[in-house]
Amino acid sequence: MAMQLRELAEKLRCRLVGNDDVDVRRLAPLHEAGEGDLVLVVNARDLPALEATRASAVIVREGSPPCSKPALVTNDPYLAFVQALRLFYTPDRPTPGVHPSSIVAEGARLAEDVAIGPLSVVETDVTIGPRSIVGAQVYIGRGSHIGADCWFYPQVMVREGVEIGDRVIIHSGAVIGSDGFGYLKDGQGVRIKIPQVGRVILEDDVEIGANVTIDRATMGATRIKRGTKIDNLVQIAHNVVVGADTVIVALSGISGSTKIGDRVTLAGQVGVVDHVEIGDDVTVGAQAGVSKNLPPGGVFLGSPAVPHLAFKRSVAAVNRLPQILSTLKRIEARLASLEGAASERREGAQPSQSASDGGPQ
Amino acid sequence: MAMQLRELAEKLRCRLVGNDDVDVRRLAPLHEAGEGDLVLVVNARDLPALEATRASAVIVREGSPPCSKPALVTNDPYLAFVQALRLFYTPDRPTPGVHPSSIVAEGARLAEDVAIGPLSVVETDVTIGPRSIVGAQVYIGRGSHIGADCWFYPQVMVREGVEIGDRVIIHSGAVIGSDGFGYLKDGQGVRIKIPQVGRVILEDDVEIGANVTIDRATMGATRIKRGTKIDNLVQIAHNVVVGADTVIVALSGISGSTKIGDRVTLAGQVGVVDHVEIGDDVTVGAQAGVSKNLPPGGVFLGSPAVPHLAFKRSVAAVNRLPQILSTLKRIEARLASLEGAASERREGAQPSQSASDGGPQ
Amino acid sequence: MAMQLRELAEKLRCRLVGNDDVDVRRLAPLHEAGEGDLVLVVNARDLPALEATRASAVIVREGSPPCSKPALVTNDPYLAFVQALRLFYTPDRPTPGVHPSSIVAEGARLAEDVAIGPLSVVETDVTIGPRSIVGAQVYIGRGSHIGADCWFYPQVMVREGVEIGDRVIIHSGAVIGSDGFGYLKDGQGVRIKIPQVGRVILEDDVEIGANVTIDRATMGATRIKRGTKIDNLVQIAHNVVVGADTVIVALSGISGSTKIGDRVTLAGQVGVVDHVEIGDDVTVGAQAGVSKNLPPGGVFLGSPAVPHLAFKRSVAAVNRLPQILSTLKRIEARLASLEGAASERREGAQPSQSASDGGPQ
Repeated sequence: MAMQLRELAEKLRCRLVGNDDVDVRRLAPLHEAGEGDLVLVVNARDLPALEATRASAVIVREGSPPCSKPALVTNDPYLAFVQALRLFYTPDRPTPGVHPSSIVAEGARLAEDVAIGPLSVVETDVTIGPRSIVGAQVYIGRGSHIGADCWFYPQVMVREGVEIGDRVIIHSGAVIGSDGFGYLKDGQGVRIKIPQVGRVILEDDVEIGANVTIDRATMGATRIKRGTKIDNLVQIAHNVVVGADTVIVALSGISGSTKIGDRVTLAGQVGVVDHVEIGDDVTVGAQAGVSKNLPPGGVFLGSPAVPHLAFKRSVAAVNRLPQILSTLKRIEARLASLEGAASERREGAQPSQSASDGGPQ
Repeated sequence: MAMQLRELAEKLRCRLVGNDDVDVRRLAPLHEAGEGDLVLVVNARDLPALEATRASAVIVREGSPPCSKPALVTNDPYLAFVQALRLFYTPDRPTPGVHPSSIVAEGARLAEDVAIGPLSVVETDVTIGPRSIVGAQVYIGRGSHIGADCWFYPQVMVREGVEIGDRVIIHSGAVIGSDGFGYLKDGQGVRIKIPQVGRVILEDDVEIGANVTIDRATMGATRIKRGTKIDNLVQIAHNVVVGADTVIVALSGISGSTKIGDRVTLAGQVGVVDHVEIGDDVTVGAQAGVSKNLPPGGVFLGSPAVPHLAFKRSVAAVNRLPQILSTLKRIEARLASLEGAASERREGAQPSQSASDGGPQ
Repeated sequence: MAMQLRELAEKLRCRLVGNDDVDVRRLAPLHEAGEGDLVLVVNARDLPALEATRASAVIVREGSPPCSKPALVTNDPYLAFVQALRLFYTPDRPTPGVHPSSIVAEGARLAEDVAIGPLSVVETDVTIGPRSIVGAQVYIGRGSHIGADCWFYPQVMVREGVEIGDRVIIHSGAVIGSDGFGYLKDGQGVRIKIPQVGRVILEDDVEIGANVTIDRATMGATRIKRGTKIDNLVQIAHNVVVGADTVIVALSGISGSTKIGDRVTLAGQVGVVDHVEIGDDVTVGAQAGVSKNLPPGGVFLGSPAVPHLAFKRSVAAVNRLPQILSTLKRIEARLASLEGAASERREGAQPSQSASDGGPQ
């Protein structure tokens, strides 16, 4: 595929500066760009690197210093670049229809233009909305409902009774609707399994990463609200509610019945204990451990997580600890000298013991 | 399904208080309960919330304050509720038999009433005990032995030579028997793979979460003992031994050859180094890092993990560090003032230097 | 299989000491060894335990104290043992050919002696090199290229356009080439998905653990260089470059665009933020969190990660904090007493206030 820069400028609604008779064939990162490539330069400090490439054109921010390359100028260069990516890379949509090697139960209802890849299993009472794509080797359990325009990559696993909205993307290896981790200890310390009879609900525009696990509720529902994006290898326990437009980065784990607000960011490897609430617009830093309710809007770090200023103060103070120890020694020496002088004045002239009694060595 | 409260009381061995001519059709969490629902109220403070619902009946603890709803009264309300869940929600057992799309080797021996779902693979010399259920798209490797009444959910992977007891539940995406992570470095720093020729043993009543990984031993066996429950996304390395009735919460990782005792609890995201032993009845808090042997019975927190009182003392002390710094400053000012007075008395009247030489700023 | 010790000594190039007319049938860990077993004893302190077993022979280091068992003596006992493991345990290679239940696209090109297990899917334009083994229920996406002598275990998932070298091993449940986690926020805080159109490259001799996830690049490539070994449940984000002969232990996560050097070791549960560089030969301890560039060659611990000596000093100082608090109290008492004496001398005899104004309690 190739597109004239002039045409591209129109489609992306950018102002074109420089030679408009250039063909763009590919998008590339700056350090790999060659002839025919369109690149993105957001930072003026990357302009010299741009000049060193053979890139054919560049997307820059309105007000950026001039450069020798033909430029698409815009107030939102990131958005223009993403739109260009969408123009140049249209994903391979599989042909609609059910691959003959797949096992689709008679009671399943598939809307028009649904595509089911090879060796998948769709159990009875499943419904799948228009234009949804189910990859190879996927499993969809009995009575699960899937909306329109979803895309499930190969080897996704959806258990029975799961509700999935429109435009939901699920990556390979994700397991949606596994049993919650719930047991009752009997008198002998042996655990009796608590039946996990609830559901999972993934609302519209949710995206679930590879090898994520989302447990079904004990009763009721585990719910991921509209627009929330979950990265790879995240664990969502039973009865958790994750708000809308929230982001959870890889290897984080949310314990049972916890509620996470809207527009929250949990960075990587964050842990959240069970039965707490994280307010809207909270950011939790990487590897933090949330052990109690967090009010809306703050930034929290550390394990246990505290407001980020308190965390930074603690880290700084800990780093100063060796200095504190030497200051203490010096203070004790000065004290001993003053005490010695005082005791001489009292003429009893007994050496003070206290300077050596167990201060930090 | 509906059941008269009177009949339910008998089955759960509860004392019935109030109107016994009520039909229960469902169990529900308190905040979702409507007509026909049975709920559980363990805490007296939830009784007002109960009154506000249209729930038809409640399970309460013996001695609980009276309420307006028909009540099933018992000394162990949790147990009664779990038993009620089991009465109302019997899992869909698949019909016994092998789905025709599955590939079962001739040398595999399946006991009576085994069910194998679609598109699964059972290799030669596998044995599967009575009434065990193998879901869709499962793989069971050569020579693995599986006991009675097991349940493997879709997309479970069991490699060759794995021994699995009775009533073992394995959730989707779990990988049992992958190679241990063992290499030998040659003189050039290149790693030579150490063949991993041991086995994995899962004893009776073990439950393994979704996307868990349990590596086979280098030689000998990686073993999970009777009744132990492992949550999602946990890593168990080669030659690890996990004791009986132990619980390991999500995203924890146990390194090679480590031994974990009976009735241990590892909370979420715990890490344990290789070749250590954790005694019986130990609890390790979330995100802790165990770097050496832990004696039986304690509670350990932090990374590196220490007894929980020591951890709490350290956290409290760290939180007090800013205060310590200001105390130190005040002490130095007082010292300087005393030293000034002393030096005046000595009439040499030179100002002391020491108060400013490098204390913590 | 059984082998005479004499023959084994020749094959392993070891010096044989003691009775050479012994048959070895198995290799075993010391604590499980019985008759017919060959064991490895590297530490002289394990020799008494060896004498207590019925092991038939032992591999020991040149210069080791004598023992009663027939011994294979060598300068590199680990290497000899690994070679013996390879002699005794040759993995079951499946018969070459495509299992009839697998779906291999017409446009896929398989070299001689490739084996494809049951119920796998190989899409069009895939190439697979000589003698590579693809297990059951594997998926290989369109246009991916796989070298010679690779081994993919059952249920591996490789998406489209992935480049894989020779002798690469991928364990079950690993997902190679899932979308990077990249969004653009619009004015309303709604995330627009950034198309992830790059690739993943796994170079020669890489090994990837079970349930690992490696995301494809936004543009360009996510790359794992020659000889690197990745343990189970590790997350590698888009555009990450991992150097050669590096080791990443379980449950670690590397954020987007980060570069990791050659011969690096990341212990378990390590997190690395995005867009940083870790130099060659660095070791990062378990559960550490790397938040900035690390120079080559050091050992780093803690979250945020610092040089290991600084970390150990901080931990030691934190452990001494309770002692610091009591030292401070003692110092304040001594100060108060000196101030009291000074004030008496001045005859104004007002008690000092400063000793009690807010020191740490």
